[in-house]
Amino acid sequence: MKKTFLLSLFAMCLSTAMAQQALWNNSQIVSPLINEDNSVTFTLFAPNAQTVQVTGDFLPAQEIEVPDWGKVKVPGVADLSKDENGVWSFTTAAPLSPELYMYSFLVDGVKTMDPSNVYMIRDVASVTNIFLIDGEGSRAHAYRVNDVPHGTVSRVWYDSPGLNKKRRMSIYTPPGYEDSQESYPVFYLLHGAGGDEEAWLALGRTAQIMDNLIAEGKAQPMIVVMTNGNPTQEAAPGETSEGLIVPGMDVSRMNQGEFETSFPDVINYVDQHYRTKTDKANRAIGGLSMGGFHSLHTSKLYPDLFDYVGLFSAAIFPFEGRDQAPVYQDFEGKLKTQFEKNPKLYWIGIGDEDFLYKDNEKFRKILDENGYPYEYYETPDGHIWKNWRIYLTEFAPKLFK
Amino acid sequence: MKKTFLLSLFAMCLSTAMAQQALWNNSQIVSPLINEDNSVTFTLFAPNAQTVQVTGDFLPAQEIEVPDWGKVKVPGVADLSKDENGVWSFTTAAPLSPELYMYSFLVDGVKTMDPSNVYMIRDVASVTNIFLIDGEGSRAHAYRVNDVPHGTVSRVWYDSPGLNKKRRMSIYTPPGYEDSQESYPVFYLLHGAGGDEEAWLALGRTAQIMDNLIAEGKAQPMIVVMTNGNPTQEAAPGETSEGLIVPGMDVSRMNQGEFETSFPDVINYVDQHYRTKTDKANRAIGGLSMGGFHSLHTSKLYPDLFDYVGLFSAAIFPFEGRDQAPVYQDFEGKLKTQFEKNPKLYWIGIGDEDFLYKDNEKFRKILDENGYPYEYYETPDGHIWKNWRIYLTEFAPKLFK
Repeated sequence: MKKTFLLSLFAMCLSTAMAQQALWNNSQIVSPLINEDNSVTFTLFAPNAQTVQVTGDFLPAQEIEVPDWGKVKVPGVADLSKDENGVWSFTTAAPLSPELYMYSFLVDGVKTMDPSNVYMIRDVASVTNIFLIDGEGSRAHAYRVNDVPHGTVSRVWYDSPGLNKKRRMSIYTPPGYEDSQESYPVFYLLHGAGGDEEAWLALGRTAQIMDNLIAEGKAQPMIVVMTNGNPTQEAAPGETSEGLIVPGMDVSRMNQGEFETSFPDVINYVDQHYRTKTDKANRAIGGLSMGGFHSLHTSKLYPDLFDYVGLFSAAIFPFEGRDQAPVYQDFEGKLKTQFEKNPKLYWIGIGDEDFLYKDNEKFRKILDENGYPYEYYETPDGHIWKNWRIYLTEFAPKLFK
Repeated sequence: MKKTFLLSLFAMCLSTAMAQQALWNNSQIVSPLINEDNSVTFTLFAPNAQTVQVTGDFLPAQEIEVPDWGKVKVPGVADLSKDENGVWSFTTAAPLSPELYMYSFLVDGVKTMDPSNVYMIRDVASVTNIFLIDGEGSRAHAYRVNDVPHGTVSRVWYDSPGLNKKRRMSIYTPPGYEDSQESYPVFYLLHGAGGDEEAWLALGRTAQIMDNLIAEGKAQPMIVVMTNGNPTQEAAPGETSEGLIVPGMDVSRMNQGEFETSFPDVINYVDQHYRTKTDKANRAIGGLSMGGFHSLHTSKLYPDLFDYVGLFSAAIFPFEGRDQAPVYQDFEGKLKTQFEKNPKLYWIGIGDEDFLYKDNEKFRKILDENGYPYEYYETPDGHIWKNWRIYLTEFAPKLFK
């Protein structure tokens, strides 16, 4: 293994135009570069491009007018400027606060991943680059991998007779699980429309958040089960025999109640294959958007199963104007039964700009009028991952105590 | 949950310029499109771009001259052509044979992921889109997810006293593992320089290949353990407390033998935490490039541990001109001891264009001269993932029989 080995390693690196570019340009671009003051510089080598822009959730959102839909908020866009070497760059005007951010470039109008940044996350049908601004003591510090014991993350296939499918879920077991004989409580954590069993692990940073909360003694060691909430799917796009399909969002069967009625399939698998505590006091269910909807309706369908319920920017009411499955009928009666059994925590988190804010207000009014106790946590912003990470970080420490 | 819910789901979809593009363009681009004859069409909406090209391993490779290095083979490039709507496209001249392919676009010279394709895989420090051409009976049919029972894939942290680190590895347990009391043989599968514990799962398609081989009865159910072969790393880039670092290739400590000497740490963890058969006849080690090097030297350092050894495009000899750790000293003596213990299978696979071909030839000569039995499998092409998937598909069925 001589010089040829290094040469050829080098040749392997050349296998992308990016590497060529870095070579010909004779410099290694670092992008995004987090500056000392937490401003961020984005850089792209693109001598032949006419325009280069960056779009991301750290830029002020813009409202655009969409035919038939009205005003819609989309992430802002900023122009990069070009130097004499064909290197484009942009630095944020102000430092960014600690957070996990998403962005991509627009090169002559075409969405482009930053070729200097290998960290990309798929959210439903689109992929964005990510970066993380850290800050000791900040909430976002729990979104990063820290030097703490790490849990195990597994992708597991289970049988769901209720959906007549083999299905995939993601399971987090806490640090120490493998080396103990103890049984653990279980938190079922559900994604939103268009998501899948990867969503909470990717943009939700669940493994990092749980590792960090447990290491700091803020949360109990627990098993976190992330299911696939789309009854038509076996697993995330690309993980089934359908092949590398284009991911989409299908809520057409959301009023059929299949996810909720078949939920015991999940619990049965988990209780049979993991060391779990199987009583109500050691079981939680929570989720975002459609997953909040699923948490709400599953927990009142099975009022003896969950002592902890978390609704994160939850959809509340079933679609109007469609036949409604029995799961959703007698909403208030089922809720009454659930609250008569005194769940230990019913938790609602929502952003003040969320499109589901009014539905949540309406739901809280029902809870208030009936004297059903719940905790309420309101944040700025709307229906975005930033909020769901916050809600997970708030909710998990309240479980199983 | 009324029209507003759907509206806002839609608004969420708008969160990328790509979605906007699809909207304004009033058409959903499908790219890559695999045509009926297995030719492939790549499409990109880029009305303002001056040039759009595609580069990928399905195009004839080109040789370029690199200063100081000489001629280097890189993937070919093809031009897309633009229609009156600003939509660029290119269709391969001929059908592509069944295989997993990698590609990316070049928009005005900038490497761009295909915004219509969410399937991307990181290989060392660069990311490419992928697509798969299927074909019943073809080898590549085993690279896709088929409608067969699936194993579990876990990312596990273990303690390595030998490297003084907590480290991460990926573990595949075969379908049925969770529901049996049986013990299973273990195959340790090692990546190349610059790779990590994700490499064999991503471009190596290990989980799919094992699921399919086991379902067809071609391979025994086995546990596959994919370690991180870089002694300086705890885990893959982005999975450690170093943060979202730029991945790199560091072979500076490759002559120190730490990976090989500390390998019992891995085996101990696996044997203590999984139901494994712990005798030599039920343990295999194999790997690609640097992982082949590790397999060769680990198996002769511990001649009682592995009855199956697989060298895939393996580096053979330690770097010359550096101090060599005891692991690598007495090469032929150690090899003699290993072969005196009659390993059941010593398997060598390499491509006829591989830069390590000559070193493998030299090594085979040593084996031949000493009468040490081995199987040899030569393929076209060089040091590429296509070959490593082939070698895995050839090697795994020979294990534990």
